[in-house]
Amino acid sequence: MRPERLTDRTALEPLLKAGWTLAQDREAIEKTFRFADFRAAFGWMTSVALMAEKLDHHPEWRNVYRTVEVTLVTHSANGLTELDIRLATEMDKLAE
Amino acid sequence: MRPERLTDRTALEPLLKAGWTLAQDREAIEKTFRFADFRAAFGWMTSVALMAEKLDHHPEWRNVYRTVEVTLVTHSANGLTELDIRLATEMDKLAE
Repeated sequence: MRPERLTDRTALEPLLKAGWTLAQDREAIEKTFRFADFRAAFGWMTSVALMAEKLDHHPEWRNVYRTVEVTLVTHSANGLTELDIRLATEMDKLAE
Repeated sequence: MRPERLTDRTALEPLLKAGWTLAQDREAIEKTFRFADFRAAFGWMTSVALMAEKLDHHPEWRNVYRTVEVTLVTHSANGLTELDIRLATEMDKLAE
């Protein structure tokens, strides 16, 4: 089933409180995660990758040593959907 | 031992023939790798991550589904060193 774009932004509020921000140039959310070192950063990425495969929804992300910059968007919907909320929430949990 | 910047660019030639390019804005090399899908892309990233830890030299990289854009530079040398040549060569081998 193709996910539909969020019409109610209420669902984003917990994420915005948790450090996610809306992208400037498109309907997407962004967050930068920082870890102790590369091993911790990539370990987290690996957990997220398994979750992403399960959801069949994948992040755009950039890793430089212990930092991972994440952008979430549902390309097929050209905006944010429930899948982005779910993946963002899982990313936060896995980074705790 | 702190690696020294390459003075002889000959060492770069095999990489430039293999699709690596010099960055425009700094002394670094770049390449975009494309795979069959996310699983293949992230599988390759995982192999590279283990190699990077072994070398204690890490890539800057951005992954979007099946694509991985890589930049290699030795930050401590503010340019390219033997470590970048080694990591780039290993990345190519692992992508074969």
